Amino acid sequence: MSQQLAVTKRADDYSAWYNEIVKKAELAENSAVRGCMVIKPYGFAIWERMQRILDDMFKETGHVNASFPLFIPKSFLTKEAAHIEGFAKECAVVTHYRLKNAPDGSGVIVDPEAKLEEELIVRPTSETVIWSTYKNWIQSYRDLPILINQWANVVRWEMRTRLFLRTAEFHWQEGHTAHATAQEAVEETLRMLEVYADFAENTMAIPVIKGKKTDNERFAGAVDTYCIEALMQDGKALQAGTSHFLGQNFARAFDVKFATKEGGLELVWGTSWGVSTRLIGALIMTHSDDEGLVLPPRLAPTQVVIVPIHKGEADLESIAEAIKPLLAEFKKMGIRVLFDKRDTLRPGFKFAEWEQKGVPIRLAIGARDLQNQTVEVARRDNKTKETKPFQNIATYIQVLLEEIQSNLFERARLFREGKTTRVENFEDFQKILNEKGGFIAAHWDGTTETEERIKELTKATIRCIPLDAQAESGQCILTGKPSQKRVLFARAY
Amino acid sequence: MSQQLAVTKRADDYSAWYNEIVKKAELAENSAVRGCMVIKPYGFAIWERMQRILDDMFKETGHVNASFPLFIPKSFLTKEAAHIEGFAKECAVVTHYRLKNAPDGSGVIVDPEAKLEEELIVRPTSETVIWSTYKNWIQSYRDLPILINQWANVVRWEMRTRLFLRTAEFHWQEGHTAHATAQEAVEETLRMLEVYADFAENTMAIPVIKGKKTDNERFAGAVDTYCIEALMQDGKALQAGTSHFLGQNFARAFDVKFATKEGGLELVWGTSWGVSTRLIGALIMTHSDDEGLVLPPRLAPTQVVIVPIHKGEADLESIAEAIKPLLAEFKKMGIRVLFDKRDTLRPGFKFAEWEQKGVPIRLAIGARDLQNQTVEVARRDNKTKETKPFQNIATYIQVLLEEIQSNLFERARLFREGKTTRVENFEDFQKILNEKGGFIAAHWDGTTETEERIKELTKATIRCIPLDAQAESGQCILTGKPSQKRVLFARAY
Repeated sequence: MSQQLAVTKRADDYSAWYNEIVKKAELAENSAVRGCMVIKPYGFAIWERMQRILDDMFKETGHVNASFPLFIPKSFLTKEAAHIEGFAKECAVVTHYRLKNAPDGSGVIVDPEAKLEEELIVRPTSETVIWSTYKNWIQSYRDLPILINQWANVVRWEMRTRLFLRTAEFHWQEGHTAHATAQEAVEETLRMLEVYADFAENTMAIPVIKGKKTDNERFAGAVDTYCIEALMQDGKALQAGTSHFLGQNFARAFDVKFATKEGGLELVWGTSWGVSTRLIGALIMTHSDDEGLVLPPRLAPTQVVIVPIHKGEADLESIAEAIKPLLAEFKKMGIRVLFDKRDTLRPGFKFAEWEQKGVPIRLAIGARDLQNQTVEVARRDNKTKETKPFQNIATYIQVLLEEIQSNLFERARLFREGKTTRVENFEDFQKILNEKGGFIAAHWDGTTETEERIKELTKATIRCIPLDAQAESGQCILTGKPSQKRVLFARAY
Repeated sequence: MSQQLAVTKRADDYSAWYNEIVKKAELAENSAVRGCMVIKPYGFAIWERMQRILDDMFKETGHVNASFPLFIPKSFLTKEAAHIEGFAKECAVVTHYRLKNAPDGSGVIVDPEAKLEEELIVRPTSETVIWSTYKNWIQSYRDLPILINQWANVVRWEMRTRLFLRTAEFHWQEGHTAHATAQEAVEETLRMLEVYADFAENTMAIPVIKGKKTDNERFAGAVDTYCIEALMQDGKALQAGTSHFLGQNFARAFDVKFATKEGGLELVWGTSWGVSTRLIGALIMTHSDDEGLVLPPRLAPTQVVIVPIHKGEADLESIAEAIKPLLAEFKKMGIRVLFDKRDTLRPGFKFAEWEQKGVPIRLAIGARDLQNQTVEVARRDNKTKETKPFQNIATYIQVLLEEIQSNLFERARLFREGKTTRVENFEDFQKILNEKGGFIAAHWDGTTETEERIKELTKATIRCIPLDAQAESGQCILTGKPSQKRVLFARAY
């Protein structure tokens, strides 16, 4: 009955609160393998909803799925100089391909005779293995563009892990496209940034800032990295998705050239873009409260739970009978409904359980409701309850789900607005950062040196140069040097 | 223009024919990583259709998805004695977690300081890591059953690989369920066998024999292994799916016990079941012909392709205009249609391309068709062509798709029937095997010794003991010892 325990409050210990939400909502847990998580059925159902919706969006924008190898030969990683610096250091290395019985009978050992000639790296990202494949697929401009996405697991040997936010193995999608012109590749990069922003805001109800990373923060091997940045309830930022314009870097590394329409031979232009199970972490930290998980209706595996309030078997039967047409109507409307008819649990227990699991709407129906033809409707987002006539309840719920979706977005947007501060000098910068947190819009002189110095002094990083930043003359908060627009600072996950 | 090349004939070189189909239909190719394949977009689209349909079937039978780690600690594999014998020998072993720059500047090397205390195995199957997790999830009978499926990639270090049929990395789903009683677990094992048989026959149009494996052929760690066996066009059998009753073996190995209703403490009963991308190999070898891939309509990413026969731009425009309502109608009906309006390719080229890619129905429309209000309908399965009135063509196509689906199944069923032979002695057994191939229904004395001797002498294995095998007294074809039913022999993939 662990579900009944109170959750740590956000204000008391945000980090402990997060871990409890993940545990009590049965989203995921640590596995016996260091840094690797088990995503439990309820957490995975949320990921499946995300996958389905994103996949449809990718396909609508002309992409197809494919599958590339889990392993990358070590030598591939070294072909793009910046890439190896950023990635190859902490990774899972396969060195052998066989186990054998220990001669002393103590178990199995790695067979020293089965050593690979070249070590294989479990992919931390797939640019190298994919561009080595594209080399064989691309000869002429007629073979372009290639618009491929892959849903995959990747491994980065993180030393400090947290469920969903940073794990050694995680699930993601990685788009890898190839184009004949720089312009087309840049358009693709920005198109997918828009897709991510659309998904974050309209499906996840998470407001995001679209921006460009500084040179210092961009993807290892990219020319430009674009990102969407979200703000969590503890005032820390979280990078929710990235889209990279790769220029010709990977084409150069893997010698991928194409015959142009005009008869020339040119290097191919590339992009890559990805979001991961980290989004579930962002989802939790944007909407959930001290009572548990809060899910936006569009992602909730169960949107409506119906809890019968009954004394005995006969009571339960008549409630079940009465709501049969309602269940059918919900299904027809595409509303994901669950009738919780477990008869070994008290209603109060069920209420707490579904609250912790973030189901957007709970309906409760008892014997008196049956008589009065009413039903109690409880919203998870704002905790309000009301008694409504049973008639036309399905239509009411349908509208209410949309309202909850909007409300969650609006609430998060207002929170972010309140936590976004413009500052003009370094003293204020530090004060705001320490006392209020959130995004800080400030002037910066554009150098990596200043950026790193600020990070050293405050642990805040430049999250992005917002795409909609207005031209505005000012002075760098640290060096006082001239600046033409504000960038967005924050401490971040 | 490689698509235009003739395909090797099945009769000439079946194995070369298979490889060419995979290549020319653009299903998959070998990657730079030994034994790992790249599944190309067209091949992956078929897999996505399979996944979607199977996933719905799993959910309808009460299962949910989850995700377990890619890595398995070496010690886990040794906990179930039979399991390690069957699996742990040829596998990818992760021994280190970091690369570093070589001191001599020659590239990157494995950092010897970053050696794992315990090696990790890239999962060849997940029973061990899942049962180690179930131990924490199961305390009481109330926690049972657990009905979980996982879509995952797994790695088995195969020495000789073939695209789809046997690769080092492959994609699959693995169901892992836990039950309070043996009976419930056996029912689950057989339920999933039925799901697989239903999917093979009604979606893939592949007739299968449901049966039980002999002790010698069962899954390492199972009490009983059930399977579906299909027959390929070269007369060799292919195991298309397996469902295992695990008894209490993995519960014992990982000490997974539950408090019974009656207050006792018992080991949990388990099942596991899986199908993989190997099914795509089965699909190819069941239906395809000397001209290329043949796809059953229910799995075809494109069910109907419309090829315009046009002289110039204006012709193409009027055809495009004329079929607009038809395209809309197809979409409304849920028929996956593609209008091939590429204007740089001749119709003959397109015909050959879609033929090689196995699209079930091709419609061709030219200027004269427009005048006559007709359309040419070509079936991929039996190569017939007919001219049909344009009016009501969508309804006609809808019915025709079903007919093609049935026809493919029926053709494969008749083929299998013709290639299934009852034999009574070893001389006939060898003769049939060498001259005709296919399934051979014969008596066997029930011993592993005889089974292995027959395999040594003929390369044929017992594919299964069919579930519907009739009681029938007879004598083992090799030893003459008494037997009560026939088993099914074949050479196999």
